[in-house]
Amino acid sequence: MEKLNIGHGSGGRLTSEIIFQILQPFRKENVSPYLEDCAIVDGNIAITIDGYTISPRSFPGGNIGELAICGSVNDLAMRGAKPNFIAMGLIAEEGLAKDELLSYMESAAKVCSELSIQLVTGDTKVLPKGQVDGLYITTCAIGTPPSNRDPLGMHLITPGDVLIVTTEIGQHEATIAALRYGLSVPSLQSDCAPLWPLVEQIIEMDGIKCMRDCTRGGLGTVLCEWAESTSLGIEIEESKIPISNEVSSLCDILGFDPLYLACEGCAIIAVAPETSEKVLSVLKAHKLGEKAQIIGKVTEEHKGYVGMNTKAGGRRLIDMPVGEMLPRIC
Amino acid sequence: MEKLNIGHGSGGRLTSEIIFQILQPFRKENVSPYLEDCAIVDGNIAITIDGYTISPRSFPGGNIGELAICGSVNDLAMRGAKPNFIAMGLIAEEGLAKDELLSYMESAAKVCSELSIQLVTGDTKVLPKGQVDGLYITTCAIGTPPSNRDPLGMHLITPGDVLIVTTEIGQHEATIAALRYGLSVPSLQSDCAPLWPLVEQIIEMDGIKCMRDCTRGGLGTVLCEWAESTSLGIEIEESKIPISNEVSSLCDILGFDPLYLACEGCAIIAVAPETSEKVLSVLKAHKLGEKAQIIGKVTEEHKGYVGMNTKAGGRRLIDMPVGEMLPRIC
Repeated sequence: MEKLNIGHGSGGRLTSEIIFQILQPFRKENVSPYLEDCAIVDGNIAITIDGYTISPRSFPGGNIGELAICGSVNDLAMRGAKPNFIAMGLIAEEGLAKDELLSYMESAAKVCSELSIQLVTGDTKVLPKGQVDGLYITTCAIGTPPSNRDPLGMHLITPGDVLIVTTEIGQHEATIAALRYGLSVPSLQSDCAPLWPLVEQIIEMDGIKCMRDCTRGGLGTVLCEWAESTSLGIEIEESKIPISNEVSSLCDILGFDPLYLACEGCAIIAVAPETSEKVLSVLKAHKLGEKAQIIGKVTEEHKGYVGMNTKAGGRRLIDMPVGEMLPRIC
Repeated sequence: MEKLNIGHGSGGRLTSEIIFQILQPFRKENVSPYLEDCAIVDGNIAITIDGYTISPRSFPGGNIGELAICGSVNDLAMRGAKPNFIAMGLIAEEGLAKDELLSYMESAAKVCSELSIQLVTGDTKVLPKGQVDGLYITTCAIGTPPSNRDPLGMHLITPGDVLIVTTEIGQHEATIAALRYGLSVPSLQSDCAPLWPLVEQIIEMDGIKCMRDCTRGGLGTVLCEWAESTSLGIEIEESKIPISNEVSSLCDILGFDPLYLACEGCAIIAVAPETSEKVLSVLKAHKLGEKAQIIGKVTEEHKGYVGMNTKAGGRRLIDMPVGEMLPRIC
């Protein structure tokens, strides 16, 4: 009898498999080859849902309440959709301090207020001690897709497209890893942020094809998904990938590959080559995109695969991770 | 330091309090006095969210997968909204049998298929063993509110309105209680069902004011909420309340009050007196409403309170329950 394991929630290969199986009974026809984190229904409603089970619940740069809004808002933003409404389901453990819960709600409300998002409905379940580890939050975000263009998505990606990363990678998971392993890394903090204010700057520009926030599984996993789903090749330059000294050092110590570390305020964007420099400069003018970089391109070679030219001058195949380095990072 | 307790998730008094506190930071103005389980936004989108943590996960009459669709669909139906889309977030425990998970997805998909509901987006998290008790599901249902009338709600209730219960009360929680206490009650099963097919029969009729499915806290809690929120009185007749022999006996044995037992396919409806008999006959013609009964009315007397004329010929005040009889029933 096959059992679920942690890897099924990693965002990598096993997650793709279990999601495919879960979807089977729901579809009479085949499953769409283009699965995005956010659906566009009835032409004008963008919907996404995500569960947040992060441990510890507070961390440098954020907490579970803030994350539960940012994460879902970012899934909308990645399709170019403006976030309007949030529905929030709480599953809390008996004995959780009420003030702690309310402090997360304060953080969540702050993000909502900054982005003029309305919390419209919710649900609160309290479970007996030991059946939840403190607090799990599920948020469903509803928004408006761009009216004057097709929603962004993998189907728009073509050979020659340029790949832009909006900020330093791996900050979120590195922060959580440092906490879990008891390592003190001053000035390391999660990049947890709502990306819509950044996306809003570029969404009307020509040539924006596809965006994805690099959450579970990190930048590496997103690129693998894009290469596989589009049957195109992807080529990146290790030397161009923005990464902080803190994250680099931590990866050296723990043996992690920063390419697979989760981010919570970092996106990868596929842009037509003729507008890529302009998009980059608009991104760099915004606080959330100051460290944006062009890191590579989409090619017709090695279809379905991601290749990286390493700093050492070699070539490396980037594969989708199978297991999970660290559970409960989001 | 105040801590959450099981009662905060009961659907009763403590739940109202914690929800009020959770909502505070999200509202610049006051919290609406009319809180419904389903929000209507932008005039034409109905949204609801609910978490499902039931134990055991399978029970006579249903399972957590079926319940996760029915429960959220019912919250939409209670506002008169047709369910169109479901977003589903899974939080699963490492070690859960994959076949078990997939069997719940089959059940969920069956309800979706019967009602032409599309699963549009989802999320799967797998947590280390011991941090989830098997599986928790959160569903967000999105639908279309009635176009030719105001969405139903407590604000429409006026004195004189007649109260109709659509089927026998307490079947769901009684079923779960029997399982938990190891009592064998042949033919007792949960009423778990999607109510939209029933609501669809009456939603165009004049005089329908407000509907609510009697989930956590049961019929008694809904009536208390209505009386308090509208500042009107409610008067019910114990002898008119439909209840099966199985539920009656189980309540006698366990000392439960059936008024507070959760249902998952039973609604209470407030209807203008002049159309109440017609509505009742339409309900009775449908499989899900065969046992519908008029159980009482809304009054101008004893404002804010629910009174019940008992079978024994006495009068009883129905108060909102403070704690919870049984956790994890939905």
